[in-house]
Amino acid sequence: MELKAIYKLVRGDLAKVESQIKSVTEVDFPDLAELLKHILLGGKAIRPALTFLSAKFYEYDLDLLLPMATSVELMHTSTLVHDDAIDKSVVRRGRPTVNSLWGVDRAVLLGDYLFAKAGEFAALTGNLRVIRLFSRTLQIISSGELKQTFDAFNLEQSRQRYFERITGKTASLFALSTQSGAILSRAPEESIQALNRYGTNLGIAFQVVDDLLDFIGTEGELGKPVGSDLDQGTLTLPAMMLLEQYPEDNPVRELFSNPDMPETARQEKIKRAIELVGNSPVEGECYKVASDYCDKARRELESLPASPARKTLVAIADFVLGRKN
Amino acid sequence: MELKAIYKLVRGDLAKVESQIKSVTEVDFPDLAELLKHILLGGKAIRPALTFLSAKFYEYDLDLLLPMATSVELMHTSTLVHDDAIDKSVVRRGRPTVNSLWGVDRAVLLGDYLFAKAGEFAALTGNLRVIRLFSRTLQIISSGELKQTFDAFNLEQSRQRYFERITGKTASLFALSTQSGAILSRAPEESIQALNRYGTNLGIAFQVVDDLLDFIGTEGELGKPVGSDLDQGTLTLPAMMLLEQYPEDNPVRELFSNPDMPETARQEKIKRAIELVGNSPVEGECYKVASDYCDKARRELESLPASPARKTLVAIADFVLGRKN
Repeated sequence: MELKAIYKLVRGDLAKVESQIKSVTEVDFPDLAELLKHILLGGKAIRPALTFLSAKFYEYDLDLLLPMATSVELMHTSTLVHDDAIDKSVVRRGRPTVNSLWGVDRAVLLGDYLFAKAGEFAALTGNLRVIRLFSRTLQIISSGELKQTFDAFNLEQSRQRYFERITGKTASLFALSTQSGAILSRAPEESIQALNRYGTNLGIAFQVVDDLLDFIGTEGELGKPVGSDLDQGTLTLPAMMLLEQYPEDNPVRELFSNPDMPETARQEKIKRAIELVGNSPVEGECYKVASDYCDKARRELESLPASPARKTLVAIADFVLGRKN
Repeated sequence: MELKAIYKLVRGDLAKVESQIKSVTEVDFPDLAELLKHILLGGKAIRPALTFLSAKFYEYDLDLLLPMATSVELMHTSTLVHDDAIDKSVVRRGRPTVNSLWGVDRAVLLGDYLFAKAGEFAALTGNLRVIRLFSRTLQIISSGELKQTFDAFNLEQSRQRYFERITGKTASLFALSTQSGAILSRAPEESIQALNRYGTNLGIAFQVVDDLLDFIGTEGELGKPVGSDLDQGTLTLPAMMLLEQYPEDNPVRELFSNPDMPETARQEKIKRAIELVGNSPVEGECYKVASDYCDKARRELESLPASPARKTLVAIADFVLGRKN
């Protein structure tokens, strides 16, 4: 199923998010306006869609949901801007990154501005529980990212640590998206918690697939270079599986044991690791893990009223597994 | 008057802020705990003091004021962490910066974490007006800082642009500190606005003095190197005055016209600019400007009930003028 078809139920409201975001770029400071226009285009809008869909089971109040959906999309964008600045990434969504065009310093400040803007939209809901959740989520995301920097080039990492990290850096924002939709629609507490767990499990699956695509995708599909996790020293699930399956002569081990090797040798190791994933059971095993998390996510929906929104949330879990970018 | 004496009225409550902040460092992630402990020590706590004092005129409710005072101090710290990362500063408050010890990437993420934590404390007030103000302030600060990066090494800047920048990057947080105290104590709207303007004018004076101290202070007093603004290409009021008073053979003009000159030549220009400020009317003129803003700030207090808190706010304006760090 294509994302466009999946979003059918909330298409009109997603268009409203887009125009809210467009209004964010209209500032009386031309240099900032240019930065905002550059970064606030494109994106799959999965997170705002989750907010809207999670609100479809009870009282759907667009006046509250629109600012929240806008907030989660802006928070997502701000984390991308800071991530790229930290990783010195050059390309994102097929376009040059903010840091590559304007420098790391401006990327940091633009990310701060977007965080603040996201916070302002969250505050427009007037819902203190959602506002607190917003701040907690940003703490969880930045701790998750910090863990990643402290774990860089470390070969001795448990899978538990990996799942802890991706739950923080990715799944927490999926969970904010679903949970806030549920809260703002006055869902009963057990539905809020079910949608919270749906979002968390979906987010973990999303990140596992993301980490796999960094090995098996193409730069054309991804809009960013492949192998970038290994390049940054980030040990993801596919790399962990490679280490387990090839204890001898393993390119990941060689790369991580000697992060200062010459650039051509580094790129050679990354290329070998990518080939190894393609010629091993790793791809299938990663999809199995992601698929199990999607199953968990889907099962959480069973307690909710059967409805087109529920079907769409099920379809999003399928989409996450099949996506190519 | 010493800061300690000035703070007499709110000393107990400031100690509570300190222990709130200490509790922020107690996280179940040792590397993050270390970063937090490093950065959350010291500081003059002017901003939380302003929040408490601004609340002394009406209903002083510590349950609301304590989280807000903690919030403004954390927001201040987070902006310092990002500023130092952007400027690649090595020393702050006489200690190595986070970026110099742990790298720019971690400094960015730590700053994000602290923003989020500050937001969580602001949310604890349960006051939506204050929460919205918090988000707006962070937008204003990051825009102000962005303006500074776009203005770097530009000799053609108006004083208006300078005051616009420092109002954004510094005075807005002073104004948040005072205004939030007023709002949370249920002050009448005209008192809220008077304290808002007091905070803004005080903050402008504070930054003018800060910019002057970067020329006339010593590294020992400041806890950071002198001349760092010129080094970053930031044109502050003393440098603008130098440009006006010495149109020929001016070290600031030479430095800014040729930012890529060799390091020793750069340092020589900075040293000459510092000497020139010391041997010219610039110092006195800057103090005159700061003093005028302090007068404006003090005059705003006249509409408030005469009280020890009002006297203390007057004394803080005097302190800002006389401070050496």
